[in-house]
Amino acid sequence: MKKVITFGEIMLRLSTGTGMLLRQANQLSVHYGGAEANVAVSLSHFGYQSYFVSKIPENSLGRAVEQHLKSHGVRTDFLLKGGERLGSYYVEEGAGERSSQVTYDRKYSSFSQLEADEIDIEGILQEVSLIHITGITLALSPALQELVLQIFKKAKEMGVLVSFDFNYRSKLWSQQEAAEAIKLLMPYVDICFCGELDAVHLLGIEPVEESLSQEERLTFYYLEILKSYPNIQYMGSTFRTVQSASSNKLQGNLFTSGKLYQSKVHHLEPIVERIGGGDSYAAGILWGILEGFPAQQIISFATAASALKHTIQGDCSSFTNEEVMQFAKNESGMINR
Amino acid sequence: MKKVITFGEIMLRLSTGTGMLLRQANQLSVHYGGAEANVAVSLSHFGYQSYFVSKIPENSLGRAVEQHLKSHGVRTDFLLKGGERLGSYYVEEGAGERSSQVTYDRKYSSFSQLEADEIDIEGILQEVSLIHITGITLALSPALQELVLQIFKKAKEMGVLVSFDFNYRSKLWSQQEAAEAIKLLMPYVDICFCGELDAVHLLGIEPVEESLSQEERLTFYYLEILKSYPNIQYMGSTFRTVQSASSNKLQGNLFTSGKLYQSKVHHLEPIVERIGGGDSYAAGILWGILEGFPAQQIISFATAASALKHTIQGDCSSFTNEEVMQFAKNESGMINR
Amino acid sequence: MKKVITFGEIMLRLSTGTGMLLRQANQLSVHYGGAEANVAVSLSHFGYQSYFVSKIPENSLGRAVEQHLKSHGVRTDFLLKGGERLGSYYVEEGAGERSSQVTYDRKYSSFSQLEADEIDIEGILQEVSLIHITGITLALSPALQELVLQIFKKAKEMGVLVSFDFNYRSKLWSQQEAAEAIKLLMPYVDICFCGELDAVHLLGIEPVEESLSQEERLTFYYLEILKSYPNIQYMGSTFRTVQSASSNKLQGNLFTSGKLYQSKVHHLEPIVERIGGGDSYAAGILWGILEGFPAQQIISFATAASALKHTIQGDCSSFTNEEVMQFAKNESGMINR
Amino acid sequence: MKKVITFGEIMLRLSTGTGMLLRQANQLSVHYGGAEANVAVSLSHFGYQSYFVSKIPENSLGRAVEQHLKSHGVRTDFLLKGGERLGSYYVEEGAGERSSQVTYDRKYSSFSQLEADEIDIEGILQEVSLIHITGITLALSPALQELVLQIFKKAKEMGVLVSFDFNYRSKLWSQQEAAEAIKLLMPYVDICFCGELDAVHLLGIEPVEESLSQEERLTFYYLEILKSYPNIQYMGSTFRTVQSASSNKLQGNLFTSGKLYQSKVHHLEPIVERIGGGDSYAAGILWGILEGFPAQQIISFATAASALKHTIQGDCSSFTNEEVMQFAKNESGMINR
Amino acid sequence: MKKVITFGEIMLRLSTGTGMLLRQANQLSVHYGGAEANVAVSLSHFGYQSYFVSKIPENSLGRAVEQHLKSHGVRTDFLLKGGERLGSYYVEEGAGERSSQVTYDRKYSSFSQLEADEIDIEGILQEVSLIHITGITLALSPALQELVLQIFKKAKEMGVLVSFDFNYRSKLWSQQEAAEAIKLLMPYVDICFCGELDAVHLLGIEPVEESLSQEERLTFYYLEILKSYPNIQYMGSTFRTVQSASSNKLQGNLFTSGKLYQSKVHHLEPIVERIGGGDSYAAGILWGILEGFPAQQIISFATAASALKHTIQGDCSSFTNEEVMQFAKNESGMINR
Amino acid sequence: MKKVITFGEIMLRLSTGTGMLLRQANQLSVHYGGAEANVAVSLSHFGYQSYFVSKIPENSLGRAVEQHLKSHGVRTDFLLKGGERLGSYYVEEGAGERSSQVTYDRKYSSFSQLEADEIDIEGILQEVSLIHITGITLALSPALQELVLQIFKKAKEMGVLVSFDFNYRSKLWSQQEAAEAIKLLMPYVDICFCGELDAVHLLGIEPVEESLSQEERLTFYYLEILKSYPNIQYMGSTFRTVQSASSNKLQGNLFTSGKLYQSKVHHLEPIVERIGGGDSYAAGILWGILEGFPAQQIISFATAASALKHTIQGDCSSFTNEEVMQFAKNESGMINR
Repeated sequence: MKKVITFGEIMLRLSTGTGMLLRQANQLSVHYGGAEANVAVSLSHFGYQSYFVSKIPENSLGRAVEQHLKSHGVRTDFLLKGGERLGSYYVEEGAGERSSQVTYDRKYSSFSQLEADEIDIEGILQEVSLIHITGITLALSPALQELVLQIFKKAKEMGVLVSFDFNYRSKLWSQQEAAEAIKLLMPYVDICFCGELDAVHLLGIEPVEESLSQEERLTFYYLEILKSYPNIQYMGSTFRTVQSASSNKLQGNLFTSGKLYQSKVHHLEPIVERIGGGDSYAAGILWGILEGFPAQQIISFATAASALKHTIQGDCSSFTNEEVMQFAKNESGMINR
Repeated sequence: MKKVITFGEIMLRLSTGTGMLLRQANQLSVHYGGAEANVAVSLSHFGYQSYFVSKIPENSLGRAVEQHLKSHGVRTDFLLKGGERLGSYYVEEGAGERSSQVTYDRKYSSFSQLEADEIDIEGILQEVSLIHITGITLALSPALQELVLQIFKKAKEMGVLVSFDFNYRSKLWSQQEAAEAIKLLMPYVDICFCGELDAVHLLGIEPVEESLSQEERLTFYYLEILKSYPNIQYMGSTFRTVQSASSNKLQGNLFTSGKLYQSKVHHLEPIVERIGGGDSYAAGILWGILEGFPAQQIISFATAASALKHTIQGDCSSFTNEEVMQFAKNESGMINR
Repeated sequence: MKKVITFGEIMLRLSTGTGMLLRQANQLSVHYGGAEANVAVSLSHFGYQSYFVSKIPENSLGRAVEQHLKSHGVRTDFLLKGGERLGSYYVEEGAGERSSQVTYDRKYSSFSQLEADEIDIEGILQEVSLIHITGITLALSPALQELVLQIFKKAKEMGVLVSFDFNYRSKLWSQQEAAEAIKLLMPYVDICFCGELDAVHLLGIEPVEESLSQEERLTFYYLEILKSYPNIQYMGSTFRTVQSASSNKLQGNLFTSGKLYQSKVHHLEPIVERIGGGDSYAAGILWGILEGFPAQQIISFATAASALKHTIQGDCSSFTNEEVMQFAKNESGMINR
Repeated sequence: MKKVITFGEIMLRLSTGTGMLLRQANQLSVHYGGAEANVAVSLSHFGYQSYFVSKIPENSLGRAVEQHLKSHGVRTDFLLKGGERLGSYYVEEGAGERSSQVTYDRKYSSFSQLEADEIDIEGILQEVSLIHITGITLALSPALQELVLQIFKKAKEMGVLVSFDFNYRSKLWSQQEAAEAIKLLMPYVDICFCGELDAVHLLGIEPVEESLSQEERLTFYYLEILKSYPNIQYMGSTFRTVQSASSNKLQGNLFTSGKLYQSKVHHLEPIVERIGGGDSYAAGILWGILEGFPAQQIISFATAASALKHTIQGDCSSFTNEEVMQFAKNESGMINR
Repeated sequence: MKKVITFGEIMLRLSTGTGMLLRQANQLSVHYGGAEANVAVSLSHFGYQSYFVSKIPENSLGRAVEQHLKSHGVRTDFLLKGGERLGSYYVEEGAGERSSQVTYDRKYSSFSQLEADEIDIEGILQEVSLIHITGITLALSPALQELVLQIFKKAKEMGVLVSFDFNYRSKLWSQQEAAEAIKLLMPYVDICFCGELDAVHLLGIEPVEESLSQEERLTFYYLEILKSYPNIQYMGSTFRTVQSASSNKLQGNLFTSGKLYQSKVHHLEPIVERIGGGDSYAAGILWGILEGFPAQQIISFATAASALKHTIQGDCSSFTNEEVMQFAKNESGMINR
Repeated sequence: MKKVITFGEIMLRLSTGTGMLLRQANQLSVHYGGAEANVAVSLSHFGYQSYFVSKIPENSLGRAVEQHLKSHGVRTDFLLKGGERLGSYYVEEGAGERSSQVTYDRKYSSFSQLEADEIDIEGILQEVSLIHITGITLALSPALQELVLQIFKKAKEMGVLVSFDFNYRSKLWSQQEAAEAIKLLMPYVDICFCGELDAVHLLGIEPVEESLSQEERLTFYYLEILKSYPNIQYMGSTFRTVQSASSNKLQGNLFTSGKLYQSKVHHLEPIVERIGGGDSYAAGILWGILEGFPAQQIISFATAASALKHTIQGDCSSFTNEEVMQFAKNESGMINR
């Protein structure tokens, strides 16, 4: 059983129901999630021993987080306890033309105030095959930026695969801040999740002309990135066409060995839950890579995993690799009886 | 802060959930609404001091109505108390090809038995910029028809803008009854909400040939109406294409100074709540007019307000003018995070 | 009031809500249903005195089943009590590309262990116009296969119309087992519900070439079946195009007197409940035949009944024949107010 | 199977949940009930063929009422359809020291406007063992008072047992109105449900001195009533001690052949549902009388039936006679496993 | 209509349902409340024009707070917008012997970071009859302590009645911190809510011997307090006996003109909602004083208001003064029908 | 971290809500539990590495069971997959005088058909401190009786503490069957949970005279048991006084070294959930013994753990040992804020 590790923040999510604004709601549904935690959950259901490294407060909400992670088989051995609060966020789910609205309340969270010396970097990386972190973690504090850099450096030393997802959030930091922090990390990254906008706005690549196809443009950007960071072995992203809050099209892209591989286009309609869709995708890519699958199979699996995630409630996916594969090959929307 | 007034009935709405008939339901959701009350609510959220004039019973349901109106900032200073009952209606929400079914239980309501001398017409019109009433109020009793006529006459005298929405309901009265009552009011109306069917069936205009486009036909009818009622400054309506109970297309029309202005076509899918969609539209038009906006901006705003209303539960809309405008210009269906 | 009878198993259905897997659910919704029971329910709402013949345990669940049937006016005079358990099944409702997943827990049920001598065949058929049974009943035990054969023979003797729906379920038996059991019954059947796949896989008809249209292929198979079983007066089936778990197209087919009649294509979107859609269709056909309607009217009615069923929760339909007919002729998706 | 009949109004009840006022509620739970309908339901579950005679509107609510009655096995053959509306009432459930608050909205209901010639009195009484009516029916209109009188007279002629429950409701009529109407009926009554307050305030019996025990006082009043109406064979009532909205004590009384029989005192805590408690009691008495049980057994059964009713939701009780008897003899509050 | 003002923090409360810990909950119910806001709500329902002065963030939660206050008629003219977050807290409701558990997440809230110069003290006190503040406000920051002192001083100058409730919360500050802050305010207070523990631990009064009755002890402490602060006209508190989380006894005390007045003892069982019980009591006292009622009537009204509050959900009470008075004189726990 | 093991069946529990019978329910709440599984859950929350050994089907319900166990930190390494079905049971929760009604549907479950050779007895006992099994496991099949005997023998050989809870269920087997099976095991038991009825009816001890106190009687029986089975080190049981379904009194008893130790009497009112109360008690005893606590402390802790369990929903308790101890010493029913 391969051992993998993710490091980041997990938050309490409070969501209104369909067609309800916060000002109308007298019930909120409860989920726990965060980009890195969600990846850990998926990798656990794919059969790995996954650890989530973070810090949560020592109170009732902290206990609930632990139980959430354990229920998905995620190991909490390196989950620190302490600090002032659990970050939370509120979601007013979109409908039709109306976008979902996220109201963050994550400042001063235990994780965002984590200090570098609280983590035993070597300890958490023992016998680990892969570590995955996203740009959200960097956005939370300079101390976390520095800590991630140390983790990535040590991981390279110890032969651990390093995965990084840009995951840019404009509500957390500016493009310039993000660009500076991310560029320091890039030389240590093996697997990188980023798209066209990231390439242009965060890595400063000159935009290619619009007349090219989406595939051509993405290929161009990935080749440009490789010029600066030849260490990167895999680059992944998705093309998402938003028809409405509950109807999207999704296609996965994986670039490796100089070539772009694409999944079929999934029609996500209705979307039960949009949040966590990217994390399931990332987990699918990582699993495929660790299993040593061919690139085409990896991208089909990962995109199917993400499509499947959109059909269930909550931030994270509890589908096993067998379930994802069965979904990927079956006709859709029937009754199995 | 401009002062506006609406006059009509507010009812208790009891609705089954998705895919439930009354014969299946053991829970009903509770809303309070009525055409004029809903317009008052929207105008309050758009920043006006809006008053709802009506009559409700002095019991637990009456108190609930008051609290509903106040929660939206609507002033209840002229809300009379007394009479026998609060009108109510039951909604079995449609799905797909099945229509929504409304079962009215509004007879003998406190409002429908309001007598003319219960209202201090001059009092309610003091310092008011605009009064809005719909055809539903007329349908409830001859006394109300007479009362509305008196209110409109006095409003004209006092320089108050008069807005009237045909809002024809076949379950309440016949076309002939409606035609008679409405024609008496038309000479006093400044802003009029009516469509092609109203022009033909209620105002008796000879149908134009079908080969014309929808826009041409509507323009024709509006010009015909102006011949009889040159006092009308604005005429509004919507084109609604019903694909299914939960999928409609909506385009707004505003006719003024001899010209028809149209909004873009909004795709309403899924429709969270259809009821109250027209009232949000009317409120948007009234707000735009009172703010002195150009016609194209008014119709875009009003149709966006209506589209947005379709995405939330309940009869009325609590979106502010800023929220409507932000919605009108943003890409749709994304997550704002 | 015509008297009709259906014979089969009724089960407890426990379903998760939208976007929920069993591993996520802490609430399950409760329905009771089964193919033959659902047909009995529809026929009762269409105005017949319908009896459901079955066996249920003598416990709290058995009582709930009785109350369910009675609430729909189905007579329970021939509902035996005893045996070990009520069969149950769990439904994880599909969404978008994800199929619905049925987990059966019906083994050892009271009905599946029914023995032939528990049923007074002549007694249940007294003054009955029609009996309806489906292939699911056959799949449950050899004793039930034998019993159904006896019932069908006796029905023919007594002049009762015999209706049989193939209803093949691969989770219950193999195609070969089904083929053997069904072929024994076919000589006694007047009304038969089966489709292209049934003709090929269960009745062993050589597949016709794919280049023909769907209508042509179906006509071919029905003519082939008639060669072996000239006793069959009506054959029915539906064409269902599955776009997603919540969006299907449905067209009904009825073959009689050498000719195929088809309904219009209904767009089922969103599908509130897929289960029981076929049973409503069958009930519609049977009602039309018993009423002596022309074939085109029968198929339009039956397909409308099925389309309508897809818009409400639960396995069975409580729409009356008047409601179905009104639905069939009305514009769709409006508000009736 | 004995045939029994009850005649009265059935209403839609809409209730808030625990600790919720109408002004706070956005969900209401749905029940259907009425004194006479509830008695019919209980008698059906006790094994009789019970008919409920009433009038309901021909709309979605009317259909729901029918389905409610049928689900309990009550025959609806004499349920008239028509009129304007279904009576409804709203319940804000009490808690602790706060009383439950009923808001009636039952005026102009189909039943309250029933006219005498709509009922085929001889028809409904054919082969009937017993008819039961309560004072609520009388309170609704003079026409209903007259109709009940005709029904009672005809019942006596035809040898049908006549049961009458005073069921005085101060929100519906004055004591004087009630007294006049009831006195006209009393000479035809065989089984009469009334208590100390009824004797004094409605039958005009001089109050006995307070120093007597409750039993002595009740015995006194029953003897006095018998002086005026020697036709009465059974008189029943309950002693209810209200400690709080959810904690009561209940003891049943039955007077027959000159003697008062009493049940044990039941402790009702917590009370799940108070409404309908008296109707279950009445049904228990009627069943015991029709079965020919000794008086002590009747009163124990009836009070147990009422106590049991208080432990479930809804206006009516679906417990069978076997279940009531098992409850009456078992230890309480254990787990049966 | 008298004008009153309260100043403090309002928070989002998220509560689990009965018998649920946060680690079990996947739904939380939403309420908004705070000691001073709750008092403003009650005083509004008692007929005053009440203003709540505070600061809330300019986001979706802030809007929800506004709507909550408005729905109860509380004026929000002085509600500042800005800052980082709305304070929140989580409640795991107790049951039986298990206490309710409050988890605060209120640090860094907009209100707690309010600075003194944001409030126009003279402006908010214009034409005000009474201002009410509690110790919780003091506990949030030194700036707030200073601000409250300025407000109280100015209020005295302007002839506004000053009401102060100790409301000591050990999770927010130490007894010593509280003592220091409170003592500075006491010379300006007219109406003071404090009990035996407050007298000893916060005001440093030597404990009286335990052998005295509760009334005698409280009288002793109040007399002692008056020695230091002869400015105080009224002192109030409650005796609460906790039998279990859902069963308490409550008796109100009011000390004025040298004499202790007590209400009857209310039995609160079951308690629907404990939070806000003290605020309803305080509001009752303040209303009675402003109305000029005799002390005995004030204390009976206030304690009844508090008892009634315990029977409904949410932090605040929407009962009117008429409803409280009707409750105070009625028998309890009956059905009003 | 001590390693403990329990072996038994885990089932799906489906419960109606308060005051609902199965015949009324259209929603059921979902829990997973079983005596031995519940003990494993508690011991995990008390800080041990607890393993649950059982067999569950390889389907959606099986996966849900796994996730349930993992969420509580219980190790599933020895959870076999296969067999036909997951046992289930239905609970109609009692109220007041009405008992809870359990309807078992557990026949033919995967666990009940487990064969002896499927378990690697030595493997599961490696490095284990304690094994706990209850009489329910024995009742399911002779094969399980034999298997438990082998497990207990091997446990004794390997120095593992053996705990056995009689847990007699009359719906599963007769007293005679139970007596035979249990007597074979008793010589290997170190810790035994049994009470007065077990001693008399299952171990055949002559009843002692009723005039003795409950404590004296229990002491007598325990001394008698020790005569036959001197190997037993600890005997435990509870005295439960059932006032109603939601109000019980509970006192714990522990007999060791010839002396009976008793906890204080806990008042359980209201009882949120009765099921699992005994398992929490057993887990508390086992934890106290393994920690080496004095007998009085063990019994206080265990009874507090059980009392606390009665205040939350679900079969199992997620309270930690710290939480139980804090509960045991705190005043009850307050708000901690």
